Amino acid sequence: MIDCTGRKSFFSLRWQGDSLVVLDQTRLPSEEVYQKLSTEEEVISAIGSMVIRGAPLIGIAGAFALCLWAKRHRGLGAGGSAAEFQLAYSKILHSRPTAVNLRWALDRMKLCFESAVMQGEELFYPLEQEALSIFQEDIEVNRKISELGATLIPDGATILHHCNTGSLATADYGTALGAIRWAHESGKKILVYLDETRPRFQGLALSAWELDRLGIPYKVIVDGASGFVMKQLGADLAIVGCDRVARNGDFANKIGTYNLSLVCRAHSVPFYVACPTSSIDWSLQCGSGIEIEERGAEEVLQSSGVSLGFKDAAVLNPAFDITPAELVTSFVTERGIFQDISDAEGSRAIPH
Amino acid sequence: MIDCTGRKSFFSLRWQGDSLVVLDQTRLPSEEVYQKLSTEEEVISAIGSMVIRGAPLIGIAGAFALCLWAKRHRGLGAGGSAAEFQLAYSKILHSRPTAVNLRWALDRMKLCFESAVMQGEELFYPLEQEALSIFQEDIEVNRKISELGATLIPDGATILHHCNTGSLATADYGTALGAIRWAHESGKKILVYLDETRPRFQGLALSAWELDRLGIPYKVIVDGASGFVMKQLGADLAIVGCDRVARNGDFANKIGTYNLSLVCRAHSVPFYVACPTSSIDWSLQCGSGIEIEERGAEEVLQSSGVSLGFKDAAVLNPAFDITPAELVTSFVTERGIFQDISDAEGSRAIPH
Repeated sequence: MIDCTGRKSFFSLRWQGDSLVVLDQTRLPSEEVYQKLSTEEEVISAIGSMVIRGAPLIGIAGAFALCLWAKRHRGLGAGGSAAEFQLAYSKILHSRPTAVNLRWALDRMKLCFESAVMQGEELFYPLEQEALSIFQEDIEVNRKISELGATLIPDGATILHHCNTGSLATADYGTALGAIRWAHESGKKILVYLDETRPRFQGLALSAWELDRLGIPYKVIVDGASGFVMKQLGADLAIVGCDRVARNGDFANKIGTYNLSLVCRAHSVPFYVACPTSSIDWSLQCGSGIEIEERGAEEVLQSSGVSLGFKDAAVLNPAFDITPAELVTSFVTERGIFQDISDAEGSRAIPH
Repeated sequence: MIDCTGRKSFFSLRWQGDSLVVLDQTRLPSEEVYQKLSTEEEVISAIGSMVIRGAPLIGIAGAFALCLWAKRHRGLGAGGSAAEFQLAYSKILHSRPTAVNLRWALDRMKLCFESAVMQGEELFYPLEQEALSIFQEDIEVNRKISELGATLIPDGATILHHCNTGSLATADYGTALGAIRWAHESGKKILVYLDETRPRFQGLALSAWELDRLGIPYKVIVDGASGFVMKQLGADLAIVGCDRVARNGDFANKIGTYNLSLVCRAHSVPFYVACPTSSIDWSLQCGSGIEIEERGAEEVLQSSGVSLGFKDAAVLNPAFDITPAELVTSFVTERGIFQDISDAEGSRAIPH
């Protein structure tokens, strides 16, 4: 696709009525290949292999996976399908364990399913409507977070960012990268240092590619260089996304986030977390309850099948870490900016 | 070569009377290839391209580079060669700017050259003897550092390590990895978490390979995971090497060292620096005077010529960072263990 500026545009995910089309993020940026997913099993596989990634996008994909399930079970009849629905729900939920947006989206779909069953309705259309709502709301939530987050970014700012939190991680605008984009589009001159984000290089492969397309000045650094940047060159803030936030503000995000937060603390650099309220797990008192996914050694040992070092090396590969609330300057949500994330519970969405 | 245990043994560098044979570290661990270097230009090129790396080894290689120069200039006569010597000295010195061991070794060679010229001696043999002394002393210094460093490692310890500081970085035993090896060979049960050390993967490619051969239990982690290890699994100490230490104890080491030191501070984990006194730059009051080498973007963008992400990404690639003295628990030198590195100045070597 070519957009109105003449640049090739892209989308992370589109629903086509009977299938889900997703951009294969494991092949970016060298190839822009879309995959058509026609069953919930295909979506589960795409989430597990990180063809689709980013906490908000995983939630949306999970919702549409249940639509694909419903499409195949049209013949079942509402009454007979509860056990089958629950099975699909569980399998999708366990495709990746750390982000909570997936559970949040699946729970919304489950409520919708139960209501349809109660009313003896056909299942597919109510579920499709709910998934489309989740998709649409993500766009609105992203834009609100981006607009609010941009107020924290001064003109002339040097910004640190970890992983990928842009259009590829969400339905549309992004969260932390959305705020950066909003600041840029408001005319602020900014420079973004992108952590390359080992082991999967989401910073080098995805965020750099997105910022390049958007014309936002950036430089990629290795994850160990954030301290160098702050000490030798200076930085005004860091902003990251999140995969799950506990009631007290402890949060899980891509491995390396905790180190970045400690480096910010040492340099008195504000550390912001862009956080749709769907990423808050109100059932968790603190971060120690968050399950950390450990992924395969090959992510560390190889890139595109090519060995990066000692191919038989023993590896520990946690996909996420937990940053304690005390290291967060504030959380940027669609409901407002909060120092204490628990204040988001009673808040309503800020009207547009 | 096969050593007495039946394992293939290796060496980082050997002098062969008229050439220098070095293990090509850019091809490890997939290929064990030795290069024969016959001119000082070839040594300069091997240092610049990191065929030879590690601050102590670079110093030794620089000394032998001057032997290769002397071999080619045997016909010049002592009197006429001072300007030519100075030219070779300067070119070798600038092959890599951050480590000070190179300057230290070249200065020893220069004193030797000047003495030979004064006495009207033939140049080659005195220079060869001096280079061999530097080589031999490195072996002894390493063993002393390793023995002293091992006293800081308790039985059962979990240890963090950055970059490569073992046999490949030195003439023989290593510095920080030497201490780890000594502890292991003393019968202590230890587990080492190796930072993979982006961008060149010295941890994943070199340290993992060395520890595997030595039978020392280890796991490679991405550089951003040290905080996760300390917080979730616990660690007893971190030990790293150094490329240049200022009088006040500020020191330059591989990029990512400073972040690791901050993570140690946050967790009250002791942070040790293994430091031959040849790495101390007594002329520098503090770390801000250390020149930081910036290397090419391709180190971040590619591995073995294969793109790791967005091939056109803008990159900042500082090869080193500066860790302030206040973050160092103590320095392990061949002269003893010092909290304040300036105390090493008056000390003599500890007798064997």
